[in-house]
Amino acid sequence: MPANHATTLGALAQALNLELHGPADYPVSGLATLANAGPEDMAFLANPAYASQLAATRAGAVVLSAGDKHHCPAHCLVSRNPYADWARIAERLHPAEVPAAGIHPTAAIDPSTRVAASASVGAQVSIGPDCVIGDRSVIGPGCVIEAGAKIGDDTRLVAQVFIGSHCVLADRVIVHPGVVIGADGFGLAFDQGRWLKVPQLGRVRIGNDCEIGANTTIDRGAIDDTVLEEDVRLDNQVQIAHNVHIGAHTAIAGCVGIAGSTRIGRYCMIAGASGIAGHLEICDKVVITAMSTVLESISEPGHYGSGIPARPQRRWQRLLVRLGQLDDWARRLKRVEQGISKPTTSAKSSATTKKQ
Amino acid sequence: MPANHATTLGALAQALNLELHGPADYPVSGLATLANAGPEDMAFLANPAYASQLAATRAGAVVLSAGDKHHCPAHCLVSRNPYADWARIAERLHPAEVPAAGIHPTAAIDPSTRVAASASVGAQVSIGPDCVIGDRSVIGPGCVIEAGAKIGDDTRLVAQVFIGSHCVLADRVIVHPGVVIGADGFGLAFDQGRWLKVPQLGRVRIGNDCEIGANTTIDRGAIDDTVLEEDVRLDNQVQIAHNVHIGAHTAIAGCVGIAGSTRIGRYCMIAGASGIAGHLEICDKVVITAMSTVLESISEPGHYGSGIPARPQRRWQRLLVRLGQLDDWARRLKRVEQGISKPTTSAKSSATTKKQ
Amino acid sequence: MPANHATTLGALAQALNLELHGPADYPVSGLATLANAGPEDMAFLANPAYASQLAATRAGAVVLSAGDKHHCPAHCLVSRNPYADWARIAERLHPAEVPAAGIHPTAAIDPSTRVAASASVGAQVSIGPDCVIGDRSVIGPGCVIEAGAKIGDDTRLVAQVFIGSHCVLADRVIVHPGVVIGADGFGLAFDQGRWLKVPQLGRVRIGNDCEIGANTTIDRGAIDDTVLEEDVRLDNQVQIAHNVHIGAHTAIAGCVGIAGSTRIGRYCMIAGASGIAGHLEICDKVVITAMSTVLESISEPGHYGSGIPARPQRRWQRLLVRLGQLDDWARRLKRVEQGISKPTTSAKSSATTKKQ
Repeated sequence: MPANHATTLGALAQALNLELHGPADYPVSGLATLANAGPEDMAFLANPAYASQLAATRAGAVVLSAGDKHHCPAHCLVSRNPYADWARIAERLHPAEVPAAGIHPTAAIDPSTRVAASASVGAQVSIGPDCVIGDRSVIGPGCVIEAGAKIGDDTRLVAQVFIGSHCVLADRVIVHPGVVIGADGFGLAFDQGRWLKVPQLGRVRIGNDCEIGANTTIDRGAIDDTVLEEDVRLDNQVQIAHNVHIGAHTAIAGCVGIAGSTRIGRYCMIAGASGIAGHLEICDKVVITAMSTVLESISEPGHYGSGIPARPQRRWQRLLVRLGQLDDWARRLKRVEQGISKPTTSAKSSATTKKQ
Repeated sequence: MPANHATTLGALAQALNLELHGPADYPVSGLATLANAGPEDMAFLANPAYASQLAATRAGAVVLSAGDKHHCPAHCLVSRNPYADWARIAERLHPAEVPAAGIHPTAAIDPSTRVAASASVGAQVSIGPDCVIGDRSVIGPGCVIEAGAKIGDDTRLVAQVFIGSHCVLADRVIVHPGVVIGADGFGLAFDQGRWLKVPQLGRVRIGNDCEIGANTTIDRGAIDDTVLEEDVRLDNQVQIAHNVHIGAHTAIAGCVGIAGSTRIGRYCMIAGASGIAGHLEICDKVVITAMSTVLESISEPGHYGSGIPARPQRRWQRLLVRLGQLDDWARRLKRVEQGISKPTTSAKSSATTKKQ
Repeated sequence: MPANHATTLGALAQALNLELHGPADYPVSGLATLANAGPEDMAFLANPAYASQLAATRAGAVVLSAGDKHHCPAHCLVSRNPYADWARIAERLHPAEVPAAGIHPTAAIDPSTRVAASASVGAQVSIGPDCVIGDRSVIGPGCVIEAGAKIGDDTRLVAQVFIGSHCVLADRVIVHPGVVIGADGFGLAFDQGRWLKVPQLGRVRIGNDCEIGANTTIDRGAIDDTVLEEDVRLDNQVQIAHNVHIGAHTAIAGCVGIAGSTRIGRYCMIAGASGIAGHLEICDKVVITAMSTVLESISEPGHYGSGIPARPQRRWQRLLVRLGQLDDWARRLKRVEQGISKPTTSAKSSATTKKQ
């Protein structure tokens, strides 16, 4: 954890407009979980799953919601959104370290490219011709930026990021290591027994305040652009194919894949390792649960899924056998139903026989 | 989109041997979708899903098949494979930009390595001893090539690609950023309560005309080699384990994983996020649908799958409960069937009783 | 395959304490599979699936278990763990090539960082301030190490690896190309219609003898650390979220994703492409089969799974239809059961009727 900026409870309460329970001059210098905090630390309670840890915490102070304050043995700051206010407090105590402005001597930058004087370009960077790097943006070590790309203001490529030619990143975008933005989409035409590469001529355009997780890939469009609107958040190892369009404020967890030309709405949440087929429309405010396969468009907000929870393997194997028998069961169930509708007849005839 | 090379309808029709409907001197300078094209643009219609956009297009000209030409409001080029001919037209109007031959001053290349005079080596590249870089090949910025690797002619490593020692890439291969070819396979022996690393001594060999998507990984063989035959096409984030063998003209979509020593045939297509277990044989012309799990060898061409389409979560949860009940249902169904086969008896006996 | 170190059967038998069947001075210079070996090669038999290849092998010698020695046409070394002893023999014949100590002139290293004299730092490397690189460790070409990271002794970052600030790798760790250790976790608070980034203040700590596969990502902890205990083995493209804790000797195959704050026990094995949800506890010695979804904690050792094997697509589609009908079947089965419990009545009444 980097060096921190100590403060007081009162200063935090005032800055974030929170209700203070405790002495305004109480010093806060650290951040910790409820379980591990000491008297110099600020902790938080946002997830009810951790509520049982509140009574025993040794934290100096806790950010929590009004309903929890009576159970808190420590000083506290009452918030309507404890997790968000915790994030703000953490940012104050440990502001992200920003590299100094300037260009590392090992960076290779085409002379036609404009780098803002307030920007930072790290070691071993390569930037092609006709690019623009905006004010206070950081191009971390090992990044490669191809010709004609535009990077806005206060945007940070952490390290080893690839930005393909003519792609556009807006302001305050964060891109983690290993991300590839603007590689060619998977465009192939089959002709005379072989694959023919279809040129990928679109760009990737990424809006303000997006964050892209490590080793995620976002392909350039085939003709039109691949687009992330503002405040889209992608976790690690997400795959976004060509011409996908992702609406503002949508968050996508790790290992999700989205196939070509699919449109995802605004305020969607897609849980880990799910896959979404190509050429679909997913409307706003759709939640996809973990490891689901989306094969059709979705036009109603709500939760959707197809993930199957793991069971003990022997039991799961038996259910798989059952699953394979369903066709047979369908026939048997129908036969049984017909048997039920006829027993009167067979009872009659046997009774009749008896009487003969 | 990079600068383009304007042409005429007639020049395209002649070069590609297409039937021309319209003036031979009609100028074509742009490429666009049916929906977004203007009078200077060439569009195309290959996917019937977009046929409804034809009537309203403002494109100057459209590449399409004979059956669609009567519904086309614009000039057109009639093709037996509109998507492939569109690819050829796009390549003519926007030929891939090839970096100039030569070695960037920041590249670190072992003196024992031979780089063709017509090849291009970008900034921040590292190439070990005893490698060969063929004619007109491009080693983009940030690539690392280990000792003894061989790169053929007209092959392009776009950027930040890793090629492990002694691996071999043939001619006209395209490798996108972040690809790792020739890392050690996952070979471990368990001994005395610990894992022991098994040396990975094979290579990766990649045939002519292959294309490898961003952040894909292809491990070196344990003893023999991992092999991609010619014209294999891998999308982004594909994982190919040690000693996998992939037949010519097979295409594999994003996020697919193939475990060790599996052989995939020629002309297979594997859809996104599927997984294929190790030590299997998949014959030629097999299609695996999205998010499927292949656990057994396949010896008949055709379509195979096990992906489950997402449903509204409440409905899916109920089906999961039902799935868990199948064992119980099997017993109940059997009991019911026995009940059906016996009612005669019970009817008889009750009838008999009645008569006593 | 790199140059090898020829030896004799006797030398190997003595060094590894194996039972020798054959002349002690028999020369061994190569390593090969049973199927491809020649008289100069050592092969091995560990997997019973390959036992049928033993009779026809042309290998000079074979490492195998006592039960197989009578079927072996070649000389042999009898081992209680043939695969492990094969690994040791392979390591002797082809020891991993270690780059010479020293710092490549293109490497950019902050002067406050301490690099052991016996360590090797490759081309195009960037190392921030206040790092430590231990004895005989190798930082391969294109790696980026941020401020304050600590790398132990005999650890190898193969190439293009990212190590985030303050992360700690112990001794004899191997990290393959494209790995990202210590990127920010996916921590977001939703507030007033937008996402707010939650600072990620923890580190990643990796124990002795771990191996991390290509393009795998391991996020730094949110407050506490993300931890891999000793001898953890991760394959390629694994995703480990913030605050995950993985017990010693656990092995995780390719494309697995583990969500935040989950604890995995010791000696677990997780097969390819499985996903494990966040905030779970998986106990020691759990095996997860391929492409499974773990949504609940597991407290009993054993095998667990939910992967569905692919079937011919037409058959699979029919089973999916059946799956969707299960709700309806539940009602029909119940109705049938009620019908069965009543036939006596209806038979009675019909018999009664007859007698009237």
